[in-house]
Amino acid sequence: MLITDLTMPDFTRGLAQTRTVLIPFGSTEEHGPHLPLDTDTLHALEVGRRIASRRPLFVAPPIHYGVCRSTANHPGTISISTSTLHALTLDIVSSLYRQGLRNFILLTGHAGGTHYATLVDAGEVLLERFADLRIAVLTEFMLASAAAKGLIETEGDAHAGEIETSRILHSHPHLVQGRAEREFPEFPKGILVRDKVRYWPGGVWGDPGKASAEKGRRLEEAVVTALEALITRLEAGDY
Amino acid sequence: MLITDLTMPDFTRGLAQTRTVLIPFGSTEEHGPHLPLDTDTLHALEVGRRIASRRPLFVAPPIHYGVCRSTANHPGTISISTSTLHALTLDIVSSLYRQGLRNFILLTGHAGGTHYATLVDAGEVLLERFADLRIAVLTEFMLASAAAKGLIETEGDAHAGEIETSRILHSHPHLVQGRAEREFPEFPKGILVRDKVRYWPGGVWGDPGKASAEKGRRLEEAVVTALEALITRLEAGDY
Amino acid sequence: MLITDLTMPDFTRGLAQTRTVLIPFGSTEEHGPHLPLDTDTLHALEVGRRIASRRPLFVAPPIHYGVCRSTANHPGTISISTSTLHALTLDIVSSLYRQGLRNFILLTGHAGGTHYATLVDAGEVLLERFADLRIAVLTEFMLASAAAKGLIETEGDAHAGEIETSRILHSHPHLVQGRAEREFPEFPKGILVRDKVRYWPGGVWGDPGKASAEKGRRLEEAVVTALEALITRLEAGDY
Amino acid sequence: MLITDLTMPDFTRGLAQTRTVLIPFGSTEEHGPHLPLDTDTLHALEVGRRIASRRPLFVAPPIHYGVCRSTANHPGTISISTSTLHALTLDIVSSLYRQGLRNFILLTGHAGGTHYATLVDAGEVLLERFADLRIAVLTEFMLASAAAKGLIETEGDAHAGEIETSRILHSHPHLVQGRAEREFPEFPKGILVRDKVRYWPGGVWGDPGKASAEKGRRLEEAVVTALEALITRLEAGDY
Amino acid sequence: MLITDLTMPDFTRGLAQTRTVLIPFGSTEEHGPHLPLDTDTLHALEVGRRIASRRPLFVAPPIHYGVCRSTANHPGTISISTSTLHALTLDIVSSLYRQGLRNFILLTGHAGGTHYATLVDAGEVLLERFADLRIAVLTEFMLASAAAKGLIETEGDAHAGEIETSRILHSHPHLVQGRAEREFPEFPKGILVRDKVRYWPGGVWGDPGKASAEKGRRLEEAVVTALEALITRLEAGDY
Amino acid sequence: MLITDLTMPDFTRGLAQTRTVLIPFGSTEEHGPHLPLDTDTLHALEVGRRIASRRPLFVAPPIHYGVCRSTANHPGTISISTSTLHALTLDIVSSLYRQGLRNFILLTGHAGGTHYATLVDAGEVLLERFADLRIAVLTEFMLASAAAKGLIETEGDAHAGEIETSRILHSHPHLVQGRAEREFPEFPKGILVRDKVRYWPGGVWGDPGKASAEKGRRLEEAVVTALEALITRLEAGDY
Repeated sequence: MLITDLTMPDFTRGLAQTRTVLIPFGSTEEHGPHLPLDTDTLHALEVGRRIASRRPLFVAPPIHYGVCRSTANHPGTISISTSTLHALTLDIVSSLYRQGLRNFILLTGHAGGTHYATLVDAGEVLLERFADLRIAVLTEFMLASAAAKGLIETEGDAHAGEIETSRILHSHPHLVQGRAEREFPEFPKGILVRDKVRYWPGGVWGDPGKASAEKGRRLEEAVVTALEALITRLEAGDY
Repeated sequence: MLITDLTMPDFTRGLAQTRTVLIPFGSTEEHGPHLPLDTDTLHALEVGRRIASRRPLFVAPPIHYGVCRSTANHPGTISISTSTLHALTLDIVSSLYRQGLRNFILLTGHAGGTHYATLVDAGEVLLERFADLRIAVLTEFMLASAAAKGLIETEGDAHAGEIETSRILHSHPHLVQGRAEREFPEFPKGILVRDKVRYWPGGVWGDPGKASAEKGRRLEEAVVTALEALITRLEAGDY
Repeated sequence: MLITDLTMPDFTRGLAQTRTVLIPFGSTEEHGPHLPLDTDTLHALEVGRRIASRRPLFVAPPIHYGVCRSTANHPGTISISTSTLHALTLDIVSSLYRQGLRNFILLTGHAGGTHYATLVDAGEVLLERFADLRIAVLTEFMLASAAAKGLIETEGDAHAGEIETSRILHSHPHLVQGRAEREFPEFPKGILVRDKVRYWPGGVWGDPGKASAEKGRRLEEAVVTALEALITRLEAGDY
Repeated sequence: MLITDLTMPDFTRGLAQTRTVLIPFGSTEEHGPHLPLDTDTLHALEVGRRIASRRPLFVAPPIHYGVCRSTANHPGTISISTSTLHALTLDIVSSLYRQGLRNFILLTGHAGGTHYATLVDAGEVLLERFADLRIAVLTEFMLASAAAKGLIETEGDAHAGEIETSRILHSHPHLVQGRAEREFPEFPKGILVRDKVRYWPGGVWGDPGKASAEKGRRLEEAVVTALEALITRLEAGDY
Repeated sequence: MLITDLTMPDFTRGLAQTRTVLIPFGSTEEHGPHLPLDTDTLHALEVGRRIASRRPLFVAPPIHYGVCRSTANHPGTISISTSTLHALTLDIVSSLYRQGLRNFILLTGHAGGTHYATLVDAGEVLLERFADLRIAVLTEFMLASAAAKGLIETEGDAHAGEIETSRILHSHPHLVQGRAEREFPEFPKGILVRDKVRYWPGGVWGDPGKASAEKGRRLEEAVVTALEALITRLEAGDY
Repeated sequence: MLITDLTMPDFTRGLAQTRTVLIPFGSTEEHGPHLPLDTDTLHALEVGRRIASRRPLFVAPPIHYGVCRSTANHPGTISISTSTLHALTLDIVSSLYRQGLRNFILLTGHAGGTHYATLVDAGEVLLERFADLRIAVLTEFMLASAAAKGLIETEGDAHAGEIETSRILHSHPHLVQGRAEREFPEFPKGILVRDKVRYWPGGVWGDPGKASAEKGRRLEEAVVTALEALITRLEAGDY
């Protein structure tokens, strides 16, 4: 059940079936010269759609904006602040809670460290705010990189590389424009760099050349399967 | 140019053509028993798409969440606070400004009073923040209701009624489920009502029964034309 | 009962008679060359005084500062931010609530859109905060323009025009300096204008030349009568 | 020049004479059984009026609400939070600065410790914000208690006692209802007391019985004289 | 019991003995040419240590940063904002409350007006937040200056003078570098001075030349004794 | 140069030698039954001290409080919110910047994900705020775990285990109470657990039994050496 497409009575009927909602967080962020700026959102929304086709589950409208630290100055990235993302997350979950939802999966297609930490921090605040709320906060990448073992050839593939390109080739092939060069940027450890584009000109971290739609299909399947297991556990309170 | 679909170099090429971006604000809000919860977002995004097909223009990823006061407790509505919407607007526009954009159209498909006032207030803050920024903040409804004169039969048609139903019938007919009854709720003037659903059970304000796809087509055309004129004026600084 | 003039025991005695308080919100805003900067505050306070003379009612000390968007750069206007007005409103009402008040009328003499929306938004927050609180948020202008039908000649009279000048001529004639020219500014629709004074040099919206003390007296009477009915309804919870 | 009473052109003319503004901060706070809740505001506004009659000076509209810690639970007190007062002060001064004012006297009739510290803290922020701004932040009480030496008989007279009663007897005699008993509350040193009314039932700190209008007249005169000297020094930048 | 040095089980055992915690607030602030920047923190921590050696009491890790207004531009001072100190205080006390503590002594070695008012204000908020919390907020200086009567020769000794130098000579003699000249700065009354160093070049307020370790020992003893009595009263709820 | 111990003129002299400051961030957090709650702070401060003994460098007073998510409910942990830590970091660095410092090393002994992300996020904000500021943000653990290769036997040793116990055995042996059992907690992936103590009763992640002071000495040496190289690079702007 995609909330975007439901009517008011659809929503009420859905609540009779499930109290679980997946909220797809993405970003508008450069993904090299070959993937669309919406890549992270597409990942999360696609996974939401697939799971919703298998079990009763609400999928909230996607959040296309995230906190992008390393790519903030690359062309096309639109980054918001951590405090805004925090407030937005609290508001959306709280409103859904008042609507009757109790189990929340905050699934982010963007896996940046400050972005993810902000969602986790909001998740903890929500645990304190509502006594009967259950919540999972996870990046697509956690699931996909686990799924990637044995399937993905590129070591350290992280951004717009073999994994992400394969997935978009599978889910939205018309949005992929060729293949970018492999790139493994080296940032100085610990130092915050002012001009990040200089250290990372191509905006890729990994090897898109090794990507294929078939790999994408298998990754997608593995991610969806892993997430389904997690949702089952979350709903059962079996932890 | 839909930013969601662009790659990083596409974005750079786009900047060579235009410094103008339309940001579609919507909401996730009940729209009666017949229209989808995403209706407001669909309006704004659709208009953005059409204008972008006529002239160089960036269309930012949509914001699906807005401030919904009167419908906050109707099933399916997800409302965020004014301070969150304010912060989100400042962040998105500021980030786009740093990317080189200079002319901003904040077009909201949701026309709630506090929602709209929040966008206007953010717009004024942005005018002070950036000396060479130009900005328009407007509701779809301002344009559509002007366009509706002589075309729309229902007086006081405001929410999920003849106007909105016609437009979704035109742009996304597969998302319309029949027609709701006409409804003209009466809230006590000036008093803030606690149980708003009681005063507005159907979630409609107007007469969906009078809607048609053809009316929708004409409204859409009129809205797009009016907005194009406004954008031309904004870009020219002719005011 | 004007709270400014009460002693501590007076206040306690007042609570035995009523749990209702009217809070007069105003602004410090240009009102053309003929009306004082305090005009909006005077309206709200005057209405409060008159109602308090007819029924048991607390009138809180006036708030002389509001959010002035269109006139912020006209000489004499002092504008505060929406977040400050929001916080101030929450604080004042919450403090009065702790003192025992339960029915609140937030009456604003300033009717700017962002100003009013801020008060309404605060009102909704307060409804959630206190389970037995009742609240009305309304602009003087809503009442006065209804009352003006058949009495006021100028169409579209909005600011420092026939209505407001008549009212101050009635309530505080010594503060009126002659009559300003009629003025009907035209701002571009939807676009936020940087130099608002250029579009609105005189600071008047309407026709002060048609004003008279007698019209002011009738308006005042109509406003007071309408507000009394509203308060009766609010106190009875008859809605 | 009382800003409340000026028209827009009056304000412009005033700016040609002076860049100095006094902002009267007060409170709505119990002042025993004999003085009005607005006492603090009346003090500050009265001093502003008198000085404005002697030299070119703007007097801003009064702020009737302050931070009242010890009396927050006494009947009639309306207290706002420190963060709200801080924001309000920054907004008002910043707006006046944009109007052309440069020398600011924040005169508070309420002398509570957290209230005063909040104003001082805001003053320091403003010094950093505007390079050519001059600012004084002072309580009426600082001036009055200096003036009281040799005139006032009660030692430790602080709140609604000999000093304040004398001043209101002089400036607003019709608002004084008899005389309260003398009272010298003893709060435990260092400990924050939950039930403050128990320690301070009468709401007086000092001896109102020793008050007289003549003493009030002399205090007022001394305060005004002292403040005038301070303003002269502030304007001259002679420090 | 210094919390810094306890293990997790030590902490649990400590809770069986007491529910009282002293939180030492300090600052990093110039204290003339002879005392260390950490002087205020050392005072508070030292008193905490001594009391903890006499009775069951937790001493929280010190906060080395405070709000320094008058010395903010003197070399070595590191000042934080009032809102940060406020938030930090609320967080620390709330976290300790969740750990089981109920009686809180916020003892600050820095006695600046805005700094102290911020702690008091936070204390009041905490009283409202937790119904069974008891709290004292006090400056070392309140206790020391009371103790100083008859012992300290310098009138108006306030900062890095006879009192503070004596105390550090007693508690941390190796950190004292000679003696500074006596200094009694004169700030203009009421006016906020931009260049505070000009008015207070030496950073001393009082006469360090009169200091001695023996005076420090007696002051320390008196402060500790006074604070012990206060803690006994606080724990007993005897007020 | 430990800022705590410097006098005002010491600080001025120090500025003539270096513009670099290390700020030691720690936490008050359970570290099993054998290590003190201040362990993280001790690590950071100790490294600061050692580096300061080898080259000109300011070491700021330690911040003993951090964001502790997983251990927030273990006895003894005192956790602050991310927004407070963010504000505190901005304030401290900004104040030091105004004092003349230009190169900042934010070294945190606590390596929690949300804690570290908060510091990184603050670091990015500071880069934007000050054009000539250089900043490194790093956890001790990043350096220590790199140094641990070949030296530390326990795989996945993370908290109060072989690494941390060795280091405290070396730097502060008197604060170590025996050795805790080895423990490798298993939290459910992705799900936020309400009762974290149940999943992690001992508060150890790794094997303290394998710790030794000699290992601690070597780790410390390696960490200090690595950090020195980083500081040299930071100061040279060689990146």
